[in-house]
Amino acid sequence: MKFNNVNVFISKNARLGKNVKVGDNTVIYENVVIGDDVTISNNCVIGEPTSEYYSDSCYSNKQTFIGSNSLIRSHTIIYAGCTIEEDFFTGHRVTIRENTKIGKKCRIGTLSDLQGHLEMGDYCWLHSNVHLGQGTKLGHFVFIYPFVVLTNDPTPPSNICKGVNVGNFSQIAVNSTVLPGINIGKHVLIGANSLVVKNIKDYILCAGNPAKEIKKVTEIKSRESGKIHYPWPYNFDRGMPWKGIGFDEWLKNNPKYD
Amino acid sequence: MKFNNVNVFISKNARLGKNVKVGDNTVIYENVVIGDDVTISNNCVIGEPTSEYYSDSCYSNKQTFIGSNSLIRSHTIIYAGCTIEEDFFTGHRVTIRENTKIGKKCRIGTLSDLQGHLEMGDYCWLHSNVHLGQGTKLGHFVFIYPFVVLTNDPTPPSNICKGVNVGNFSQIAVNSTVLPGINIGKHVLIGANSLVVKNIKDYILCAGNPAKEIKKVTEIKSRESGKIHYPWPYNFDRGMPWKGIGFDEWLKNNPKYD
Amino acid sequence: MKFNNVNVFISKNARLGKNVKVGDNTVIYENVVIGDDVTISNNCVIGEPTSEYYSDSCYSNKQTFIGSNSLIRSHTIIYAGCTIEEDFFTGHRVTIRENTKIGKKCRIGTLSDLQGHLEMGDYCWLHSNVHLGQGTKLGHFVFIYPFVVLTNDPTPPSNICKGVNVGNFSQIAVNSTVLPGINIGKHVLIGANSLVVKNIKDYILCAGNPAKEIKKVTEIKSRESGKIHYPWPYNFDRGMPWKGIGFDEWLKNNPKYD
Repeated sequence: MKFNNVNVFISKNARLGKNVKVGDNTVIYENVVIGDDVTISNNCVIGEPTSEYYSDSCYSNKQTFIGSNSLIRSHTIIYAGCTIEEDFFTGHRVTIRENTKIGKKCRIGTLSDLQGHLEMGDYCWLHSNVHLGQGTKLGHFVFIYPFVVLTNDPTPPSNICKGVNVGNFSQIAVNSTVLPGINIGKHVLIGANSLVVKNIKDYILCAGNPAKEIKKVTEIKSRESGKIHYPWPYNFDRGMPWKGIGFDEWLKNNPKYD
Repeated sequence: MKFNNVNVFISKNARLGKNVKVGDNTVIYENVVIGDDVTISNNCVIGEPTSEYYSDSCYSNKQTFIGSNSLIRSHTIIYAGCTIEEDFFTGHRVTIRENTKIGKKCRIGTLSDLQGHLEMGDYCWLHSNVHLGQGTKLGHFVFIYPFVVLTNDPTPPSNICKGVNVGNFSQIAVNSTVLPGINIGKHVLIGANSLVVKNIKDYILCAGNPAKEIKKVTEIKSRESGKIHYPWPYNFDRGMPWKGIGFDEWLKNNPKYD
Repeated sequence: MKFNNVNVFISKNARLGKNVKVGDNTVIYENVVIGDDVTISNNCVIGEPTSEYYSDSCYSNKQTFIGSNSLIRSHTIIYAGCTIEEDFFTGHRVTIRENTKIGKKCRIGTLSDLQGHLEMGDYCWLHSNVHLGQGTKLGHFVFIYPFVVLTNDPTPPSNICKGVNVGNFSQIAVNSTVLPGINIGKHVLIGANSLVVKNIKDYILCAGNPAKEIKKVTEIKSRESGKIHYPWPYNFDRGMPWKGIGFDEWLKNNPKYD
């Protein structure tokens, strides 16, 4: 249905694995390497050349790598020089600029805008319309919700770029802004509509404009169940590697994620 | 000018009414039903298959219905399983996920992102870049402005989905966020940049982070005219069915909208 | 690489300067005039017809002008009736509605949404996903950051349109909202996540929800250098015309920008 081979352009210098499907009107440029069993839907651009392409007559495209078992939804643009591990999923109209490193099993929602020169670990889930500035560093299992912005220029405009760091298992709720160079610990929860202006320690709920420390996440009860919900890996395992094992047991065997 | 029949793909199983125009580079997939006098502009995707398409070899596309006299602007994606009544208008690059029900005479602005499994009544106007989570229920004549997010997960991440309900004639101003499961009454006005954390009664202006009840909307004077502006249907009738009749008279004859 | 002349449509009534490159799947409609050395990347729409096109059988496209040395990145839509001076740069998926006037050397970031009937001077830089309502007037060297909204309807919904005015060298940081008809002076800095509800005088830092006057921008020290950073033209000259000359000396010779 979506793969009729109409108006598809694939560079001769691209290398596609086994069972790769490419949607109509999609373009795959020079030096793109795609793993096995990847689906790239319609109207995508993979290996988009960087700015230098327009001015440098000796320009050559850096390698773009997309790991196996990935699904890139329609109208997504991924620049040359990105490295994306296996089991990657996107929504529609995602933009990922050059030199972005993405771990395995990540998901990036519709309209999200990754400005490049940034990195994230494994199992990060970005919802729709998340904006990550250059220099951002996300740990593993970081979840970010719509319209969140991670900034990087402390005194705009300047030539300083200080990205935001977010620790493992932390979450940033909708419409929040994090100021440049802020360090957010692990297992943190940033409430909706917050402006984060200082570093946040591990296991803290903070919220507000400016965001203040509210309490430990271990004190947050679910309004639905009345039970303690955080740290969330004890109460959520859909798509998570500790499913059927339990978080503690899994973590013991996977200490790199601690 | 926009309808040159270049690179258009229409499934043999789609049913198009009379005088339907389809723009260049647009795709209409299986089981799409389109009413009379509809214009679907260039680079659109109508009847986009759901996630199951990629994994289920027996997948078949649910019906997508778009009512008569609609205008879908370019680069819009509408998933299979949506039902949209007549006189529907979109801006550009709108994304509407599966199982969205939209009443008649609705307008959805550029870049808006409807996450599916949600519904809205008649005459809802969403401006640019509105994000509606799954489970959202909008009444009739609900107006929502840019960068508003209606959320649905009370303790992210979880498997609970509690959408926001918005009553008839209510409005949510720019950049506001509404927390999961909140009920907003009818004729409410939510001020710009607000975070709505509790239910809002009918005819109330609320604003702030967190949003507080400020006053009744009937106490808001227009800075321009010095006159009371709300309930707005008494002072605004462009494109509204009470034009030339008066709101009270019209409502008497159309009690379903009360 | 990006210019293979595949599925390109250029109206016979468009006039292209020397050395204009047009990307694949791009459409250039009637009455578009493009200067020399312009690159329009893939999947763009230039000279998009206005709403009247769909209803008026006598419709003719107003002139769209794009100045020399411009670079329009992919998936950008520019409506008929826009006038854009030389050295214009866009990101991806920018939408510019009709009757937008843009001075020279401006940059508009990915996903930005200019609603038309608005104007900006020279050297304005809009980052990603900026929303400018109709009636907006930006001076010269105005910098606006992601998810900022400049509004225009004081009592929504109404038929009143009062755009925001922003003075030369002013900046509006991420996720801020400016209410309708507000006048922001020159060399102003609006902090992140602010709601601007009243006029702001020259050289003021304001921030918060609602935004309050914090101090003079001349009192803001860079956390990095410990030095005074504002007015920023004394400390930033990348891409600026005073580079190598000094701001004061340049301004003396270019009093229109004062």
